[in-house]
Amino acid sequence: MTGAALYATRIPKIRRNGILDKKSLGIGLVGSGFMGRTHALGLASVGRIFDLPLVPKLELLADATRPLAEAAAARFGFARATDDWQALVADPAVDVVDITAPNKLHAPIALAALALGKPVYCEKPLAPTAEDARVMAEAAERAGVVTQVGFNYICNPMLVLAREMIASGELGQVWGFRGIHAEDFMANRQTPWTWRLDPAGGAGAIADIGSHIIGMARFLLGPIAAVCADVETVIDRRPLPGQPDEMRAVAVDDQARLLLRFGNGCRGTLETSWLSSGRQMQLEFEVIGEKGALVFSQERFNELRYYKTEADRSRNGFRTILAGPEHAPYGAFCIAGGHQIGFNDLKVIEIRNFLSALAGGPKPFADFREGYEVQRVIDAALLSSKNEAWVRL
Amino acid sequence: MTGAALYATRIPKIRRNGILDKKSLGIGLVGSGFMGRTHALGLASVGRIFDLPLVPKLELLADATRPLAEAAAARFGFARATDDWQALVADPAVDVVDITAPNKLHAPIALAALALGKPVYCEKPLAPTAEDARVMAEAAERAGVVTQVGFNYICNPMLVLAREMIASGELGQVWGFRGIHAEDFMANRQTPWTWRLDPAGGAGAIADIGSHIIGMARFLLGPIAAVCADVETVIDRRPLPGQPDEMRAVAVDDQARLLLRFGNGCRGTLETSWLSSGRQMQLEFEVIGEKGALVFSQERFNELRYYKTEADRSRNGFRTILAGPEHAPYGAFCIAGGHQIGFNDLKVIEIRNFLSALAGGPKPFADFREGYEVQRVIDAALLSSKNEAWVRL
Amino acid sequence: MTGAALYATRIPKIRRNGILDKKSLGIGLVGSGFMGRTHALGLASVGRIFDLPLVPKLELLADATRPLAEAAAARFGFARATDDWQALVADPAVDVVDITAPNKLHAPIALAALALGKPVYCEKPLAPTAEDARVMAEAAERAGVVTQVGFNYICNPMLVLAREMIASGELGQVWGFRGIHAEDFMANRQTPWTWRLDPAGGAGAIADIGSHIIGMARFLLGPIAAVCADVETVIDRRPLPGQPDEMRAVAVDDQARLLLRFGNGCRGTLETSWLSSGRQMQLEFEVIGEKGALVFSQERFNELRYYKTEADRSRNGFRTILAGPEHAPYGAFCIAGGHQIGFNDLKVIEIRNFLSALAGGPKPFADFREGYEVQRVIDAALLSSKNEAWVRL
Amino acid sequence: MTGAALYATRIPKIRRNGILDKKSLGIGLVGSGFMGRTHALGLASVGRIFDLPLVPKLELLADATRPLAEAAAARFGFARATDDWQALVADPAVDVVDITAPNKLHAPIALAALALGKPVYCEKPLAPTAEDARVMAEAAERAGVVTQVGFNYICNPMLVLAREMIASGELGQVWGFRGIHAEDFMANRQTPWTWRLDPAGGAGAIADIGSHIIGMARFLLGPIAAVCADVETVIDRRPLPGQPDEMRAVAVDDQARLLLRFGNGCRGTLETSWLSSGRQMQLEFEVIGEKGALVFSQERFNELRYYKTEADRSRNGFRTILAGPEHAPYGAFCIAGGHQIGFNDLKVIEIRNFLSALAGGPKPFADFREGYEVQRVIDAALLSSKNEAWVRL
Repeated sequence: MTGAALYATRIPKIRRNGILDKKSLGIGLVGSGFMGRTHALGLASVGRIFDLPLVPKLELLADATRPLAEAAAARFGFARATDDWQALVADPAVDVVDITAPNKLHAPIALAALALGKPVYCEKPLAPTAEDARVMAEAAERAGVVTQVGFNYICNPMLVLAREMIASGELGQVWGFRGIHAEDFMANRQTPWTWRLDPAGGAGAIADIGSHIIGMARFLLGPIAAVCADVETVIDRRPLPGQPDEMRAVAVDDQARLLLRFGNGCRGTLETSWLSSGRQMQLEFEVIGEKGALVFSQERFNELRYYKTEADRSRNGFRTILAGPEHAPYGAFCIAGGHQIGFNDLKVIEIRNFLSALAGGPKPFADFREGYEVQRVIDAALLSSKNEAWVRL
Repeated sequence: MTGAALYATRIPKIRRNGILDKKSLGIGLVGSGFMGRTHALGLASVGRIFDLPLVPKLELLADATRPLAEAAAARFGFARATDDWQALVADPAVDVVDITAPNKLHAPIALAALALGKPVYCEKPLAPTAEDARVMAEAAERAGVVTQVGFNYICNPMLVLAREMIASGELGQVWGFRGIHAEDFMANRQTPWTWRLDPAGGAGAIADIGSHIIGMARFLLGPIAAVCADVETVIDRRPLPGQPDEMRAVAVDDQARLLLRFGNGCRGTLETSWLSSGRQMQLEFEVIGEKGALVFSQERFNELRYYKTEADRSRNGFRTILAGPEHAPYGAFCIAGGHQIGFNDLKVIEIRNFLSALAGGPKPFADFREGYEVQRVIDAALLSSKNEAWVRL
Repeated sequence: MTGAALYATRIPKIRRNGILDKKSLGIGLVGSGFMGRTHALGLASVGRIFDLPLVPKLELLADATRPLAEAAAARFGFARATDDWQALVADPAVDVVDITAPNKLHAPIALAALALGKPVYCEKPLAPTAEDARVMAEAAERAGVVTQVGFNYICNPMLVLAREMIASGELGQVWGFRGIHAEDFMANRQTPWTWRLDPAGGAGAIADIGSHIIGMARFLLGPIAAVCADVETVIDRRPLPGQPDEMRAVAVDDQARLLLRFGNGCRGTLETSWLSSGRQMQLEFEVIGEKGALVFSQERFNELRYYKTEADRSRNGFRTILAGPEHAPYGAFCIAGGHQIGFNDLKVIEIRNFLSALAGGPKPFADFREGYEVQRVIDAALLSSKNEAWVRL
Repeated sequence: MTGAALYATRIPKIRRNGILDKKSLGIGLVGSGFMGRTHALGLASVGRIFDLPLVPKLELLADATRPLAEAAAARFGFARATDDWQALVADPAVDVVDITAPNKLHAPIALAALALGKPVYCEKPLAPTAEDARVMAEAAERAGVVTQVGFNYICNPMLVLAREMIASGELGQVWGFRGIHAEDFMANRQTPWTWRLDPAGGAGAIADIGSHIIGMARFLLGPIAAVCADVETVIDRRPLPGQPDEMRAVAVDDQARLLLRFGNGCRGTLETSWLSSGRQMQLEFEVIGEKGALVFSQERFNELRYYKTEADRSRNGFRTILAGPEHAPYGAFCIAGGHQIGFNDLKVIEIRNFLSALAGGPKPFADFREGYEVQRVIDAALLSSKNEAWVRL
């Protein structure tokens, strides 16, 4: 019996007579670092925030060693712990595999889970290269199960609003896009070499943070048809951790700049850098259309600036929309506008989306196929920069 | 045996040999509306966010009717439900009473709990009048237990930073304060009469939202020594709910403006209104000192604007500090700056503060005494406005 | 023959057959400091910016000494110079007297000019006390000539827009006002004693800069009916200029805070300070009405923030209107929006208003009567603070 | 005798014994449209704002017809008028030729003036193509006279500050630039065909407004070594003026996006559009360096946002510097910060720079050579876009 078929036999336990039972779903979490904890928090909260058809049960947590796993399980409220992710994947009480392990483990864990027909929720970036991501996306499609990649920023109600405004034609023809994701955590040249700089990954800032703005661009405007990129390693040597006099060469990009052409005809630019002094979360975009424009910054992600073209310019200007109950699902967190949801709440929405999909709702925007498409843009940018030429996708 | 003594006998179960056991604390929650849910969410999350000596256990939930209480208990994860708050207070598994019931019930519930020596966590405003609040504060002090009022906005790491900058002398002598809490939820004169307008409460906007900015002023600058206020009912009739042609007179204030003199010599203004068109959370302040100034708005509560007086003005100006791990306890929620905590996270910090105090840590800033002091300022403002004269506190 | 009659005989030279000749108007300027120069600049530019019925001719400049006056006349382009302001006032080629001399000279010069029936343009504040200002206003009304006080900030097209929006009912009933004028030029306690601190003037910051926000409040909302103020001298001793060890007591106010009741029923607050660290031109207001609100800051005086209450909140928020040709007379300076007029341009508009009035157009908003009314508010605030009581105007 | 030699014979009249006399300089202005008037205003004001060695005399104005020229001369204060620009150039009382005529006339007028050895001040863009501009620049260098192109935005004190901060190393190594000039005056597809769309010019938005941000990029960071551009005509047909049903094809660009590599190693992006809904003057840049960053917007051109990297992040953030007397030559316009200079004042500074250069001071940054260099970048961008390839400059 194939994995997908195996899992399919479980479905009747979840659905009965076409109606969903209020039923718990066993979660197996791999990884207990910052993102692991964020997932655990979200899994614990989601049922209190949203009225859900499926309630996650924190069943099993895996990490590199048993003590690490046990401490995390206790702290996060998981029932059991293991140092063997393969055991976790195979565990019959684990209905869904949630991956927050280091990037290079994403593919093996996900493929193992998919082989058993288990839905997978995986942190971004999906894989180090587009090729790996393609294999994962195809495995997911063969398995016919729900998958999701952790692009949590697009779960923001203001992003959903922006997308609706674009899709509905409120902005008219959209002819311009500018996207940025810049931070400064590598701006100090004394900051030591880290795993983020590992050339095995193939990409640096463009993968680590650029994937967010690439995903956001696609979420808003659809496929990117062509890119022309200038990718650069600025600080080409870093001291080894704890050995300030020992330098290691850096091969991956510190910053990247792209010209974009979207499939819908819109053109734009996209930038990413981890050397951007003073920026902690400059994940920003501007969408320019015939009838209006939108401006967004993740540093104020409960706001969306909006210009609506009107005949009388004397009273017009960019307005600042504050997130409120009018912007679903903000109201699930707070009954009044202007109070703000936080970073962790975006993850809660993401988990809600995943659970809804498992219960038969619409599939998540950022499934494995989407993770692969983002990776393709990254690969295209690297190739474009290398060849100093446009690359069609 | 007095209530305090009764409860004291429970303490040994919590502490042993002067060392805190990792021990659960039975929570009894009264009320399951918006604030009740916010408390429940926070109680469920706090142990995953913070490493705590005491872990809250969602033991018993009370609401007006049994079906209401049971539905909420199921949704929020409480073990049991009741329609009898007195039973809840007396329940031996309830170690702490958490009150999010309508304002008029705060006093009876809190007093009953305090009589049994149980710590109380109560939503703001503590009571409809300063007199009620005084009774509660004195009962709390007699009982010798930890109390806390839900002024969650002061739990913001940026507010803690602001307070430290003032207290440490970084701003030099502080000589000016401007505080505002303005929203617009009553700005439409067709908005019907509600319980917020009940004259039994004695105050309207100044109690409902003004209490936040009064508490914030005290948190930052200490006691208010004198006020001179202008309190006004602007829309003096409102339609009854569902009966747009039936009008009911309004006696409580829609907006209030105060001149303030602080005990430390600083002077200021304070305003509150629920008629402020376009404002959803204009909880703002400006603190002006000899060596610098601070500007804050709750609509962007992960930011603090700061001016530091320096000799060279050519490079100087107000700077925007983004909340980050440098500002405890932000780092408990997210490892990187600029990602933002949300409204519900402030409640989590508040609950952490309460639990820390129960475990022997510093008592919460906003205890019942503080709730009473805030209420005194409100009463003084009402009296000042009525008499058109300054009132000393 | 009275002064007014004398001047009246000159009118026919300006108007003929009810039609204005393109005719020059002899200007006599008293004072050549910063404001004198600003006036001279404006007088020289106004005819190139606006199509005017009367063109100012820079006829005669007076200053304290002949060398000072001559140097200034040469630099500013005045035809002649004098050290005798009385001679200037009486000079037959001087049609209009323009006063930028120290405040204490405003009254004698203006009264002398009015006695001769000459129109007077006088810098703010009109006089040190309301009593002086009243005498001047009454003399102006007896003379029946055009007068103007230099409240240049209200000449801003965005202020004119704000006033129109209020007057036309676009904001509905206006029920809230907040006004601030804060700067920091006296915030350093080592800043020496200056003429601004002269107790003969009666007032400090409230007169020097507060007059601007008081005038602005009146421009927008009409008469102030009552005030309750808290006026304070914070730094009560200052070193003498050049003698850092010699201290002089300070009697005038550093900061003032007022509760306001307008004649139209609107209530508000008003603050002024010259100790506001980090502020260079915090001349700000917020006007709150039933159907919307306006927010303005002089530090960005080519912008007006506007909230318009609309049924659909999901797309709404404060919008930032940029000054442009839609906002007369911006278009006289620049044909495209967003380019910004400057501080000196406000003076050009003020001069245009004055010249238009002289040519039979509408009288300036800020005439001597208005200057007196502003002064009355200042006096009322000082009295209110002294008596700790409301003062009706 | 060559033109340069001819003009050189005039120099002794201006300088005597190596010391400049306070001497007037005859200005011949060609063109009296919006920019002509702006020049006239500036020429009239500059001597009152700055203490100048040379005072401009408004000698002769030329426009297309005699009535047009005479009306403008009267309005702007020029002594004489002509409909023959060649006569103006040759007029012995004209020492300097100031060109605000349509772009296609820039070259013939400037070349005629240069042939006579007369300094030339010409509006931007210098010429329709880089080739034309090169001829003009070389003629200017042969003539050995002062030239200036009207890139007034770089005359802003805040831009001068930004340049100093970069040049002095205050920002450390500069590794990132983002430049934008976007407006919306062509965003409505019903806006008729205009001369700006004339394909003879070769370029549209990138020349009309893009030249500003290209010039600004060069002003801040020096030569651009290579570009890769995507240039696009979005609205490819426009109605003829007054004939809404008659469409004319549009060949020039509506928007352009460039990847940049500067000679100093810095990389960046640059965008320009006249279809950017809601933008009236989005002339913005961000300069990112190792030790800090700068952010600027022309819509608030009296401000410069600055991040200075410091060890203690807890008090740090982007600060907003307000233009003030510390930022020369702001103080020539106003003695206090935060008051703001306006668009027309930038032109006054530009004229001051030109006059200073004529009097032996430093040559203007934006001389004809610079005008040519900006044009080269535009041509390179057009070529790059056509060939879909990088172009080295």
